[in-house]
Amino acid sequence: MCQLLGMNCNVPTDIVFSFTGFSTRGGHTDTHNDGWGIAFFEGAGVRHFVDHEAATASPVADLIKRWPIKSKNVIAHIRKATQGRVALENCHPFMRELWGHYWVFAHNGDLKGFVPELDGTYRPVGSTDSELAFCYILQELRRRFGIAAPPLPALHEAMRELTAAVARHGTFNMMLSDGSALFAHCSTNLHYIIRQHPFATAVLSDEDMSVDFSEVTTPNDRVAVIVTTPLTSNERWTPFQPGELKVFVEGAPVQVGS
Amino acid sequence: MCQLLGMNCNVPTDIVFSFTGFSTRGGHTDTHNDGWGIAFFEGAGVRHFVDHEAATASPVADLIKRWPIKSKNVIAHIRKATQGRVALENCHPFMRELWGHYWVFAHNGDLKGFVPELDGTYRPVGSTDSELAFCYILQELRRRFGIAAPPLPALHEAMRELTAAVARHGTFNMMLSDGSALFAHCSTNLHYIIRQHPFATAVLSDEDMSVDFSEVTTPNDRVAVIVTTPLTSNERWTPFQPGELKVFVEGAPVQVGS
Repeated sequence: MCQLLGMNCNVPTDIVFSFTGFSTRGGHTDTHNDGWGIAFFEGAGVRHFVDHEAATASPVADLIKRWPIKSKNVIAHIRKATQGRVALENCHPFMRELWGHYWVFAHNGDLKGFVPELDGTYRPVGSTDSELAFCYILQELRRRFGIAAPPLPALHEAMRELTAAVARHGTFNMMLSDGSALFAHCSTNLHYIIRQHPFATAVLSDEDMSVDFSEVTTPNDRVAVIVTTPLTSNERWTPFQPGELKVFVEGAPVQVGS
Repeated sequence: MCQLLGMNCNVPTDIVFSFTGFSTRGGHTDTHNDGWGIAFFEGAGVRHFVDHEAATASPVADLIKRWPIKSKNVIAHIRKATQGRVALENCHPFMRELWGHYWVFAHNGDLKGFVPELDGTYRPVGSTDSELAFCYILQELRRRFGIAAPPLPALHEAMRELTAAVARHGTFNMMLSDGSALFAHCSTNLHYIIRQHPFATAVLSDEDMSVDFSEVTTPNDRVAVIVTTPLTSNERWTPFQPGELKVFVEGAPVQVGS
């Protein structure tokens, strides 16, 4: 099984602290050493890094731990191959364009008997069930809404139906973002935390590292961090319910479409 | 105007030498400091790096100069903004998926009155004429050939028509690759060299650096390097003719479709 990390904020924020703990699981504190990847939205653009080396051995992962890229939406992934060989094209997150926006997707889990009909709008480049699910979701969104993005409530409702349909085939913990909203669906294992004023000190579980967020934030900052298993040992993380889809905007889960 | 660098090889080859000279033009020996980018095919996957910092100031460019990523197809670009503000989403190369392959594109030049009709298959994320031309070309390729890739001669012929059509709107020096072939179209300025056995020493024009390729190659290696202006001072580069489209496969230009 793989692990997922996502961040959604109301101001561009760096993910160095969380990524440091998370990437340690890619080869050191856990066995997810079949590649990794991370995508940072920066305005409409995306910085996208993938590597089929273990995150603990990757020169790019090392760079990212030292380089505070600020972003409002980040999705990262460390891979333990279940379907698809260890290869660059099978590393998450995957990226495509829909409605003039980049969409970024990562998945943790294993799908069985998932053979959706693809019309060629989006086709997988690699051989993972994950990229197939991503292509299917984007194809269905375009089929439903045409060439222009719908309002968030309609998108949320469509995502609820589509993620439920995919999840019937197995484990579908996933994150998807278009750079404004971050969708997170849980089948088995996903947790989140909202960090906001008053900020406190957080201590990583996987590395000897802590940060006092009150020193690096303003009172208006709000940051949602979503991850497979909690990254810190002294904060209260909220578990997702199985089958739950949440959408985060500006650093908080929003209730729309229901 | 921007500058382009491409490489197409018959064995995975690193581009450290050429990129070192090329990236020096992004801020030092030339004024292309409105961003840069590079994409390396690795099997079916792509490592894609873009930055709106000058290449000479970018931590990722620095990493790439030290990290010998081996690839059979590489496209790089340093940007002097003409259309589209300085922003990550406007940095070349651009990337999309077509026929289950990633396609990578970079452009040097300026298009006027280029307003192709887009049907939504591919939409630009940024505001450059370049990304618009890329979306148009991929849309037209899909429109002509449907959901499966045609043989190379048919693709070459289509690319000849499409690049000529775009070039009627201005300067269209461009490179496009799907990871197997690299297409290069010249409006005004593009040069190439084929390096093969017997290999010799090459000396960069922009940096105090040389490499003896006979020490780092085998007799079967063949590498085509395509660039806006020649990178080395002691080799003979072949200029493209205005309006010429070449397609490189396995390190050499191929004559197909004509």
